[in-house]
Amino acid sequence: MLNIAVIGCGYWGPNLIRNFNELDNVRLSVVSDLRSDRLRLMQKKYPGVDVTLDHNEVLNNPEIDAVALATPVDTHFELASIAIKNGKSVFIEKPLTASVTEAEELIELSQKYDKTLMVGHTFVYTGAVQRIKRLIDDGTLGDIYFFDSVRINLGLFRPTVNVLWDLAPHDLSIMDFLLEGEPEYVSAIGVSHFNTGIENIAYISVYYPNNVLGHVHVNWLAPVKLRKVLISGSKKMVVYDDVEPDEKVKVYDKGIFLDDNPDNTYQKMVGYRIGDMYAPKLDGTEALRFECAHFVDCVRDNKTPLTGGEAGLRVVRILEAAQMSLNNNNQKVDIRCSKKLPTMSRLEKTVESSTLSTSMAAL
Amino acid sequence: MLNIAVIGCGYWGPNLIRNFNELDNVRLSVVSDLRSDRLRLMQKKYPGVDVTLDHNEVLNNPEIDAVALATPVDTHFELASIAIKNGKSVFIEKPLTASVTEAEELIELSQKYDKTLMVGHTFVYTGAVQRIKRLIDDGTLGDIYFFDSVRINLGLFRPTVNVLWDLAPHDLSIMDFLLEGEPEYVSAIGVSHFNTGIENIAYISVYYPNNVLGHVHVNWLAPVKLRKVLISGSKKMVVYDDVEPDEKVKVYDKGIFLDDNPDNTYQKMVGYRIGDMYAPKLDGTEALRFECAHFVDCVRDNKTPLTGGEAGLRVVRILEAAQMSLNNNNQKVDIRCSKKLPTMSRLEKTVESSTLSTSMAAL
Amino acid sequence: MLNIAVIGCGYWGPNLIRNFNELDNVRLSVVSDLRSDRLRLMQKKYPGVDVTLDHNEVLNNPEIDAVALATPVDTHFELASIAIKNGKSVFIEKPLTASVTEAEELIELSQKYDKTLMVGHTFVYTGAVQRIKRLIDDGTLGDIYFFDSVRINLGLFRPTVNVLWDLAPHDLSIMDFLLEGEPEYVSAIGVSHFNTGIENIAYISVYYPNNVLGHVHVNWLAPVKLRKVLISGSKKMVVYDDVEPDEKVKVYDKGIFLDDNPDNTYQKMVGYRIGDMYAPKLDGTEALRFECAHFVDCVRDNKTPLTGGEAGLRVVRILEAAQMSLNNNNQKVDIRCSKKLPTMSRLEKTVESSTLSTSMAAL
Amino acid sequence: MLNIAVIGCGYWGPNLIRNFNELDNVRLSVVSDLRSDRLRLMQKKYPGVDVTLDHNEVLNNPEIDAVALATPVDTHFELASIAIKNGKSVFIEKPLTASVTEAEELIELSQKYDKTLMVGHTFVYTGAVQRIKRLIDDGTLGDIYFFDSVRINLGLFRPTVNVLWDLAPHDLSIMDFLLEGEPEYVSAIGVSHFNTGIENIAYISVYYPNNVLGHVHVNWLAPVKLRKVLISGSKKMVVYDDVEPDEKVKVYDKGIFLDDNPDNTYQKMVGYRIGDMYAPKLDGTEALRFECAHFVDCVRDNKTPLTGGEAGLRVVRILEAAQMSLNNNNQKVDIRCSKKLPTMSRLEKTVESSTLSTSMAAL
Repeated sequence: MLNIAVIGCGYWGPNLIRNFNELDNVRLSVVSDLRSDRLRLMQKKYPGVDVTLDHNEVLNNPEIDAVALATPVDTHFELASIAIKNGKSVFIEKPLTASVTEAEELIELSQKYDKTLMVGHTFVYTGAVQRIKRLIDDGTLGDIYFFDSVRINLGLFRPTVNVLWDLAPHDLSIMDFLLEGEPEYVSAIGVSHFNTGIENIAYISVYYPNNVLGHVHVNWLAPVKLRKVLISGSKKMVVYDDVEPDEKVKVYDKGIFLDDNPDNTYQKMVGYRIGDMYAPKLDGTEALRFECAHFVDCVRDNKTPLTGGEAGLRVVRILEAAQMSLNNNNQKVDIRCSKKLPTMSRLEKTVESSTLSTSMAAL
Repeated sequence: MLNIAVIGCGYWGPNLIRNFNELDNVRLSVVSDLRSDRLRLMQKKYPGVDVTLDHNEVLNNPEIDAVALATPVDTHFELASIAIKNGKSVFIEKPLTASVTEAEELIELSQKYDKTLMVGHTFVYTGAVQRIKRLIDDGTLGDIYFFDSVRINLGLFRPTVNVLWDLAPHDLSIMDFLLEGEPEYVSAIGVSHFNTGIENIAYISVYYPNNVLGHVHVNWLAPVKLRKVLISGSKKMVVYDDVEPDEKVKVYDKGIFLDDNPDNTYQKMVGYRIGDMYAPKLDGTEALRFECAHFVDCVRDNKTPLTGGEAGLRVVRILEAAQMSLNNNNQKVDIRCSKKLPTMSRLEKTVESSTLSTSMAAL
Repeated sequence: MLNIAVIGCGYWGPNLIRNFNELDNVRLSVVSDLRSDRLRLMQKKYPGVDVTLDHNEVLNNPEIDAVALATPVDTHFELASIAIKNGKSVFIEKPLTASVTEAEELIELSQKYDKTLMVGHTFVYTGAVQRIKRLIDDGTLGDIYFFDSVRINLGLFRPTVNVLWDLAPHDLSIMDFLLEGEPEYVSAIGVSHFNTGIENIAYISVYYPNNVLGHVHVNWLAPVKLRKVLISGSKKMVVYDDVEPDEKVKVYDKGIFLDDNPDNTYQKMVGYRIGDMYAPKLDGTEALRFECAHFVDCVRDNKTPLTGGEAGLRVVRILEAAQMSLNNNNQKVDIRCSKKLPTMSRLEKTVESSTLSTSMAAL
Repeated sequence: MLNIAVIGCGYWGPNLIRNFNELDNVRLSVVSDLRSDRLRLMQKKYPGVDVTLDHNEVLNNPEIDAVALATPVDTHFELASIAIKNGKSVFIEKPLTASVTEAEELIELSQKYDKTLMVGHTFVYTGAVQRIKRLIDDGTLGDIYFFDSVRINLGLFRPTVNVLWDLAPHDLSIMDFLLEGEPEYVSAIGVSHFNTGIENIAYISVYYPNNVLGHVHVNWLAPVKLRKVLISGSKKMVVYDDVEPDEKVKVYDKGIFLDDNPDNTYQKMVGYRIGDMYAPKLDGTEALRFECAHFVDCVRDNKTPLTGGEAGLRVVRILEAAQMSLNNNNQKVDIRCSKKLPTMSRLEKTVESSTLSTSMAAL
C-alpha cells in the first residue's frame, strides 16, 4: 500500500485527488492547501483523508511515500526538492519548473536520491496522442514535415504566468512526445494587452533538425475554443481535434509526391495525391487515470516514467527560450548548446512507450 | 462603351474574362496568352472576342481603354508600365508587384498619366469582409486586439513563387482593409521542404500600433482546407470562416473586462463576459463581379479605387519585409521608415468604402 | 429538513442520488435497489446514507417524506401508489407509467391524498428548452408550423421496453412543453430486427390542431449520435442541437411570406425571407439539479410542479396511441376522446413556467 | 453525330443544355421553351444552337435523334409519347411521369418503337451513391436494416407539385438504386400550411421485404439545409451527407451483435461493437455529366440505361402510393399487386451497374 499526499487543491488538484483515491493499492492519506475552504470541500468529499494547511507536515511526514504537486509553477522546485531530500517520489503538474536550471537540478536530485520524478504531461496519456505516436512509430505517416498546434479560448487571465507558460506546456509536451530528435532553435512572439505586462497571445516556433517545424498558437482572447493539431508526413497526414466529441483523430491519405525525371519542368515535379480518410477508434479512458496509475507503477517498481524529469526539462527549455525570444524581437534562440542530458534519453523514451502501451491495453 | 483586354488565361484569368464579359457598357475586346490552347478555349466560349499570342498587340492597341493582368507577378510591373504609358488604365491581380520599388513606381506612373491603377484584392469585395468592416467602423467590435488568419490546404506547388507570395496576399489584403493604422514591424518564419528552395509553410506576424497584432499562417502541406480569420475586439469578437457554406461570419458577444478597483487582487481584476452569438446575413453576390464593376466605374468616372495602387503597395511592403525576416532568422523588420505615402490615403479609403457600400447595395 | 429516498440505482438513479445529496435542507436518507453490488457502490460514495435491498422498508418508513423512483416503467404504478397511500410525495422517472389508465389513477390518488406527483421530464429543465419556450411565449417565433425531433444513436437494446418507450419520452416531453393545445391524432411506424419483437426504430407523428405537426424519429441502430429538434414558426425558426457543445439553440430569421395580391400568379404569392441567425446564451446549469430542486420546492410549499402528473399523462397518452398505431398498420389513432383533464391544466402550466424561470434565475 | 434537342429552359434545363453541349460526338441542335426571354438567354450563351417557342417543331423534326425533357411533370407523358412515336429516344427529368399508368404506357411505347427511355435520377450517377452501391454489392455493409433520408430546406413553393413530388424523387431514386428487392407497402403523412392545398412537409415510409424499412423526410419549411442519408447494415453503417464539401460518405465499423447462448438473459444477448470510421475518396466528376454521357451511350449502342423507364416507374409507384396514403389517414398502401414488370429488371440493373462503373472509371 503506497501512501500518497497531494499539495494544492485549486483548479487541477481535485482531479489528482479523485484519481489517486480511486486507485487500488494506493492510500491517499493527506491533502494540503493554504486555503481552509478548499480543504473543507475535500474533507466533505473524502471523509477518510487527512487535511492540513501546512505543507511541511506533508513533506516531513515519514509515512508519505510520494507527493503530487498541483501548486503554482514558482513553488515546484522548492517543494519538490524538500520532498525528494526527505525520501519521497514526486509527481509535478506541468510545467515541471520555472527554469531550465531548476529542472536540471531536480533531475540530479532525483537521481542522487533514487526517487521517481514525473511531470504531469497529461495529454501524452490520451488515447488520441498514444494512437498518433503509434502511427508515427510504425511508419504510417512517413517522415514528418511539420507539427502545428492551436490552443485558444476565452481564458481566465492568471496573475503569475502568461499564456505561454499557462497553455503552451500542453502543446509542447504533445510535440515533444511525438517528434523525434532534439529541437535546435526557438523563436516566439507575443502581445500583452490591458497593461498587465502578461502576454495573453503567443506564437511559438520550434525548429527541429531536417527542416521539421513545430508551431504553437496559444491565446486567451479568442472567441471560440480551438484545440487542433496538424501533423503532415510524407505518407499520411493527421488532424487531431480535441474539441470533437468523436473522431478526434483523422488520418488522411494525402501527400505530395516528387517526380525525379530531370527533364520535367518544375511544375510537373511536384504533385499531390488524395485518398481515403479514416478515424481510428480511440481508447476513451480518462488520461489522468492512466497517468496516476503510471506514476504509482513507476514508484513501486522503480521504473522510469514515460514523462519523467527529462521530458519536463525539454518542455521547460523550449518555454524559457520562447520567453527569451519574445523579449528580444522574436530572434531565434539556439537551444543546442544547453544540451547536457545523455543521448540515451530518447531511446529510453521509446522503449518505455511500448511498455506503457502494453500496460494501457491491460488496464 | 469601355474597351477592355485581359492578358493571361491561366487559372484566374478566365474568371476575369467571364465577369468583364457579363458587364453592361463594357466590351471585352481582346484576350491574350502565350499558350494557343488556352486561347482556343476562350475563343470557343466567347466567339465575339479577339485573341492574340502577342500581348504587345494589346498594349499598343489604341482602341483598348483598360487592361487587366492575370499573369505571373514578375511580369506585372513591365506590362503595367507600358499599358499606363500607352494611356490605358490597369487592373492587376494581387500581389500588385514583386517589390515595393516597383509598386511605388507604378503608383507614380498612374498619377503622372492620370490613369486608374487597381489591384485585385478580391476578398475585400466579399459580403463577409464588407460586413466585418462595417462592424469595425460603427464601433460594434470596439478596439481591435488582434487579427489571426489561417489559409491552409494541400496546394499545388508553384514554380516561381513561394507560399508567402502565393497565399498570404489574400489574408494581408483583408487585414489591410480592416485594421486602422499603418503596420510598424513585420517578422516571419518559413520552411522549404523537398529541396526546392521555395517555402511551402510560412507564419507572418505584423505589428500595428497600440499592441494590435496581425498573424497569418499559410501552408501548402495541410491535410485539410482551412480559411479562418479571428478578430478580437474590446466589445465583440468575430470569426470569419470562409469554408462554411452558410454563416461565414459569426459575431460573439464575448469579452474581457477590467475591474479598476485597486484594492482587488489581480485575479479579480480581469474577468470575462459571454453573451449571445449572431451570424449576420451576408450579400451573396460574387465578389469578383463587384470588383470588376468597381474597376469599370473608377475608369469611367476617374474615381480612386477602394483597392488602388496604395493598398497594393501596403500589401507588397509586408510581403517584402516578411521575406526579408524569413531570410534573416525571423528578426523583426521595421517598415516605418519606408513610408512615403501621404497620410490622406487612409481617409480616402474610409470615404471610398462607404461609397462602395452604397454602390454595392445598389447593384 | 425533507427526508428523501431513492429507489433504483441502475443507470439513472445515481444521478438523482448525487443531486438530492447536494441540495440544501434535504436529507437523502435511504437508497434501495435489488442488487447488493449497486448498494455497496452507493454506500462507498455516500457513507451517511442508509441502503436496503427491500423497497418496502422505504415505502413503509414514516420518516420518509418523498420517494424518487428510478425503476423500470412497469413498476412505477405499484410503487408510486403505495408511496402516495403511505403519505409520501413521489418523483417518477419518465415515462410516468406504462399506460394511460395507470397515469390517470395515479393523478387521482395524488389529488386525493394531496401529495406532490412529479415526472422526470428532465429536458424541460434545460437552459435550451426553457429559452425556446420563452421565444414561443413572447411571440418571437410566431405561429408554430411543425416540431421535428431526431434522437438516434447506436443504443443498448433493453429487455423490457422498445425504442419508442425508451427514447421518445424525451422528445415528446419537450414537444408537450413547447406546443400549445392538445394533440388530436397519433400515428406511428416501427420495425423490430433481430427477432426480438422489440422495435428498435420508430417514427411517431402527432397531429395538433391548426395543422401543427409533431414528428419524432427514435432509433437504436444509427451509426451517429443525433439529437436535433427543428421548430418552424411564421416569424422565426429554431434548430436545437443537443450534441453541439456550444450554440445548442440557433434562431433563424427565416420565413415564408404570402402575397395577398389576387392578381399575382401562385408562384409570386409565396416567397421566402432570409435574415440574420443568432444563438442565445443559455443557462448552463445541470438540468437535473433544477429538476430535483423544483421537486423539493413543490413538496415543501405544496405547489404544482411544472412537469406534474398531467404532463406525464399527456406523454403516456401519445406513447400508448403510438404503440397502438404501430401495431395496426400505422393508422391514425384519435386521442381526443380520452381527454378527461380540466382545461385549466394548460393555463397552470404557463403560469408555473414563469415562476420556474424566476426560481431558475434565482438559483 | 447524335442530334439532341432540349425542351424546357427553366431551373434545370440549362444544366442539361450545358452538359449535352460539352459532349463529344453530340450536336445540341435545338432548344425549346414557351418563354422567349429564356430562349434569348440560351442563344446568347450558345450562339450555334437553334431556338424555338414551339416544341412541336422539335418533336416533328426528323433530324432530331433524341429529346431531353426538363418540363413540368404533367407534360412528360404527352411530350414523350409523341417523341417516341416520331422515332426519337427520350430523356425525362424525374419524376418520370405523373402516374403509374402513364409510366407503364411510356415503357410499352419505348419497347414497341425500340427507343431508349431514360429518367434523370441524377443522384444515382454521383460518386457518393456509386460508392455506397459498391459497399453494398461487395458485402461490406452486410444485410441492410434501414435507409433513412432527410432532404429539407427553406424551399421555393411550387404551383403544380407538392413537396412529395418535388423533392422525394431524389431520395426514392437513391433508395431504389441501393436497396435490393421490391417494396411491398408505402405509407405517408404530410401537411399543407398557408391554405394552398399543397403539402410542404411529408414523411414517407417504404416497407421492403425482410423488415427493411425506408424512410424519407422532405420539407420546404426548414431553417437549415440538410441532405443526409443513413444506412445501417449488419456489418457496417453509412452516413452520406451531401451538404459536406469533403467526406460526403462515412463508413462506420459499428454494429449490433447477437449472443446465441440461450442461457443468457436478454440484456446480454444484444451488444454493440464500435471500430474505426473511414471516408472513401469519391469520384468528384459532375453527376449530370455522367448521366448525359450515359444517355448518349445508350441511344447510340441501343443499351438499357441504368435508370431506364422501369427505375422511373418504381419511383412513381412509391410517389403515387404515398400520395394515396397521405390522403387516407396514413394507411399502409399495398403496392405488391401492381407489379406487372418482368422479374428480370433487377438482374439487368445489377449487370448494368457494373458496366457503368467501368465506363465511369474510363471517363
